[in-house]
Amino acid sequence: MGDDEFSLIARLFAPLAARHPGALGLTDDAALFDGPAGRQWVVTADAVVAGVHFLADDPPELIARKLIRVNLSDLAAKGAEPFAVLLAACFPVGATAEWLDRFASGLKADCEQFGISLIGGDTVATPGPLTLALTALGHVAAGHAILRSNARSGDDVWVSGTIGDGALGLLAATGKAGALGAQAAAALIDRYRLPRPRTVLGRRLIGLVNAGMDISDGLVADLGHICETSGVGAVVEATLIPLSPAAGAAVAAGVGQGLATVLTGGDDYELLFTAPRSSRPQLSALSLELALPLTRIGRIIEGRGVSVVDAAGQPLALGHGGYQHFTG
Amino acid sequence: MGDDEFSLIARLFAPLAARHPGALGLTDDAALFDGPAGRQWVVTADAVVAGVHFLADDPPELIARKLIRVNLSDLAAKGAEPFAVLLAACFPVGATAEWLDRFASGLKADCEQFGISLIGGDTVATPGPLTLALTALGHVAAGHAILRSNARSGDDVWVSGTIGDGALGLLAATGKAGALGAQAAAALIDRYRLPRPRTVLGRRLIGLVNAGMDISDGLVADLGHICETSGVGAVVEATLIPLSPAAGAAVAAGVGQGLATVLTGGDDYELLFTAPRSSRPQLSALSLELALPLTRIGRIIEGRGVSVVDAAGQPLALGHGGYQHFTG
Repeated sequence: MGDDEFSLIARLFAPLAARHPGALGLTDDAALFDGPAGRQWVVTADAVVAGVHFLADDPPELIARKLIRVNLSDLAAKGAEPFAVLLAACFPVGATAEWLDRFASGLKADCEQFGISLIGGDTVATPGPLTLALTALGHVAAGHAILRSNARSGDDVWVSGTIGDGALGLLAATGKAGALGAQAAAALIDRYRLPRPRTVLGRRLIGLVNAGMDISDGLVADLGHICETSGVGAVVEATLIPLSPAAGAAVAAGVGQGLATVLTGGDDYELLFTAPRSSRPQLSALSLELALPLTRIGRIIEGRGVSVVDAAGQPLALGHGGYQHFTG
Repeated sequence: MGDDEFSLIARLFAPLAARHPGALGLTDDAALFDGPAGRQWVVTADAVVAGVHFLADDPPELIARKLIRVNLSDLAAKGAEPFAVLLAACFPVGATAEWLDRFASGLKADCEQFGISLIGGDTVATPGPLTLALTALGHVAAGHAILRSNARSGDDVWVSGTIGDGALGLLAATGKAGALGAQAAAALIDRYRLPRPRTVLGRRLIGLVNAGMDISDGLVADLGHICETSGVGAVVEATLIPLSPAAGAAVAAGVGQGLATVLTGGDDYELLFTAPRSSRPQLSALSLELALPLTRIGRIIEGRGVSVVDAAGQPLALGHGGYQHFTG
């Protein structure tokens, strides 16, 4: 297949969205449509395949919970309150009742944790690998959804939480982090398998930020999406990237490509946003209130593209720049 | 896998829908939620897998169009006006650009024909068979959606169009209708590959009918769903089932199980509904106006279950009663 995911969508599917401005030209993770009482509905969908997006022997509860959470992360990035999900599940013919029970218990746990309902979907058998498609619906004050397209030169670039844990956790889960201690490896694997969608933070960012999205393809690639959509550039200071203790240990131990893995690996599911300098006091207060780190890591500039600089201000070379779902 | 689709959903997933009455306990094809200006949004999702739900060498345009149409059929059954779809597509690694172009052109054709937009989704590569999940959204006057649960003893049972073409068409497409002429076979294959969702009819049925759904699992099985949900029974007169000329020829030629295939085969995507006797004049007028046959085939009775009787009033034996997606 010659196209990557983005060009495939742009070439084949974006023309079909032209009728509906709320589809955002299919360049975003979610679509908006009008809702009741001053709210807009927000809808997003993701598909995952065993052996591609998760490991076939991952615990079934965690497969279910991660699928919900990556979609709730998309809603959080819009500032939306999650409402419901639909699940289209293609189970392998040999799936056992125990496996399915455990999968459903994972769905149930996260429906309860995030106050959402499963309101529909489909269940079929497949001769292929386990394949799951989830549609998530949320709502946001009409006209106030956080978009990718409004970053402005002079904005600060912020991230929530810590960066790189997901990508390093995948390496640890697949036995590619041999030099790392067991405790750090376990912490990173947990972060890889069970993202923490920032649903509360997302809603609170409305009014404070100019642009935002969640980090799923990697910090550099996703900041690139914001820059491209907004017609601006960005500079990130590598020394400002917030690392968990386990990620710090992994980088020090040379796991993967070290800092390059942190910057370009996927699966963070933290929020990445740009905000005017005037929002700094409120964002600092919000970080304290939510007990969640919010860290300034760079700034939006005029121009194009994302550069990452070291402590001396020298650009780092990062190779391919971010995970591409559809390459190859 | 020991469960059929229905018991799997009831056991594992219905508890997750309890919070939201509009999910209808996951016993229906669609979920309702409040919309703007006196409308409710209606959402439905379906997953299809190559080699299970369609033939891997079916024309890609028709795979796309059928996927849209089966979902629009679910919306039509609710009386909803279609609004938009989301597509989660898992394309095999070897999919060619030509195949993808043809697939997208099918999506485009039906988006235009039915006045809907593709507002989101996901595109991933899979090592397994082509797998597609579509979520469709529509809206209906709040409180007026047609449900399965309101059939009443004494209602007439009606169907739109002709019955059995889809199931017979699948047999013809797989070389199992040898005795049938080429023209009739082509007509049935077309009906199998390209359902005609009754979107205009569905909206017009609001106010005239008590209960309804679309026929996807087979006439007898789906009428059974209405009866079970409504707490009633039904009697269908086999001689009243409307057949297309091609289906009549196929039954006469002994294709498949003959009339049993018509009554229990799936893939009709016609509307099945129950209506009080007082609606007969308006339904007859509507049939003329839309140039679409609407045929009374039986009646709702007190009791349980669906029986099909012959011209002498004797029950027919139909074997397993309907296609079960998840058996085996």
